[in-house]
Amino acid sequence: MTYCVGLKIDRGLVFMSDTRTNAGVDSISTFRKMYTWEMPGERVLVLLAAGNLATTQAVVSLLDERSKAPEDREPSILKTPSMYQTARLIGDTVKEVISSSAPVGQNADAFGASFILGGQIKGTEPRLFMVYPEGNFIEVSDDTPFFQIGETKYGKPILVRAYDPSMTFAETVKLLMVSFDSTVKSNLSVGLPLDLLFYERDTFEVTYRKRIGSDDAYYREISDGWSDALKSAFKSLPDFKP
Amino acid sequence: MTYCVGLKIDRGLVFMSDTRTNAGVDSISTFRKMYTWEMPGERVLVLLAAGNLATTQAVVSLLDERSKAPEDREPSILKTPSMYQTARLIGDTVKEVISSSAPVGQNADAFGASFILGGQIKGTEPRLFMVYPEGNFIEVSDDTPFFQIGETKYGKPILVRAYDPSMTFAETVKLLMVSFDSTVKSNLSVGLPLDLLFYERDTFEVTYRKRIGSDDAYYREISDGWSDALKSAFKSLPDFKP
Repeated sequence: MTYCVGLKIDRGLVFMSDTRTNAGVDSISTFRKMYTWEMPGERVLVLLAAGNLATTQAVVSLLDERSKAPEDREPSILKTPSMYQTARLIGDTVKEVISSSAPVGQNADAFGASFILGGQIKGTEPRLFMVYPEGNFIEVSDDTPFFQIGETKYGKPILVRAYDPSMTFAETVKLLMVSFDSTVKSNLSVGLPLDLLFYERDTFEVTYRKRIGSDDAYYREISDGWSDALKSAFKSLPDFKP
Repeated sequence: MTYCVGLKIDRGLVFMSDTRTNAGVDSISTFRKMYTWEMPGERVLVLLAAGNLATTQAVVSLLDERSKAPEDREPSILKTPSMYQTARLIGDTVKEVISSSAPVGQNADAFGASFILGGQIKGTEPRLFMVYPEGNFIEVSDDTPFFQIGETKYGKPILVRAYDPSMTFAETVKLLMVSFDSTVKSNLSVGLPLDLLFYERDTFEVTYRKRIGSDDAYYREISDGWSDALKSAFKSLPDFKP
């Protein structure tokens, strides 16, 4: 499993992903699920991937290879004219990879993968998309300002309740840390280290990125603090009177 | 979907279940998922059901019918010598119903159902079991003092964090209310009203039961209060420093 979140705030975009992959509980590895393409001053693209690791790696390899290839190996993810066209490119690549992996008549679900794509291309607004295994995609709206992929349930309630578009990056990272901590505590197949990235709008370069290990002081502070804060919050509510 | 929790504390057993059933989002109904058998002074049995409604109703009808039937229609749920034998009886009944519903070769999963069984029979301790669609079952331990069936993920983190075996009934109901509120807010297929029951050990009769509707004052207080308490808890944590 996997847990990835992409979140849009007024100031820009924030991304977090875990790094655990597993094929059964006795076959666990660490793989980066966050990929970036950057042309400073022109575009920043961030892709988060969940699902079949062979599929997601093939998609990223194809995107990467074409971005470095001679002119005739279009389309390149570094040349798409808009975020919408970038999402289409990723959708098409996902479809291509899945259809070439899954023999006719075989269940294609096992090869499935979902992606969160965010970024900004000069002359356009920052945008955030979710790309489905079928290759189609949706964009965030003001009502639903974030996307989650992978093991989404444990970490959703706090996102829904505490998100506010005027949040600072520091507050947003805190929110994501709490959401990831709840998920890591509940599902063995989501694990540290985490990859964090934030992008400030109209800067056209990655503002900040960090890999957060289990010994990270801030992560520990949030993880321990949230348990205590939850217990206090719970205690503060009135008891039932039969 | 469904959400049911059975929880063991030092003082006894507490049960809560929702009442929403659905076959698609446009076919929603309200059905009780909590069933009780009581012989005051001798035994109290509580059964919570999740899964295929036809299966769960058939299981309960069979148990019920046999408990009222002439002597030769044994085994009766009112005559089992122990909670362990009661869990076996329920497991056998589940197997019987599922195997008669699912034609050979057809996927039996669609007919699946899970149960939480709790109660006490005179001369024995209160016990709490989870019965699987396959008819086998497990019992709570000190490490895992509760069972959830149905849509279990949203409501689990608070159960794990706030449970304490020395809780009073009033505190336990508060805990279940928070767990159910998180689930109801996140999944349309879990809905009010809720059924609440608690059983105080060694009393051999149902201590308290109540149906909690969406207009219930305490539910509203917890639902609103928990949102605010969570936000305050979140605010109390330190922000990330890049």
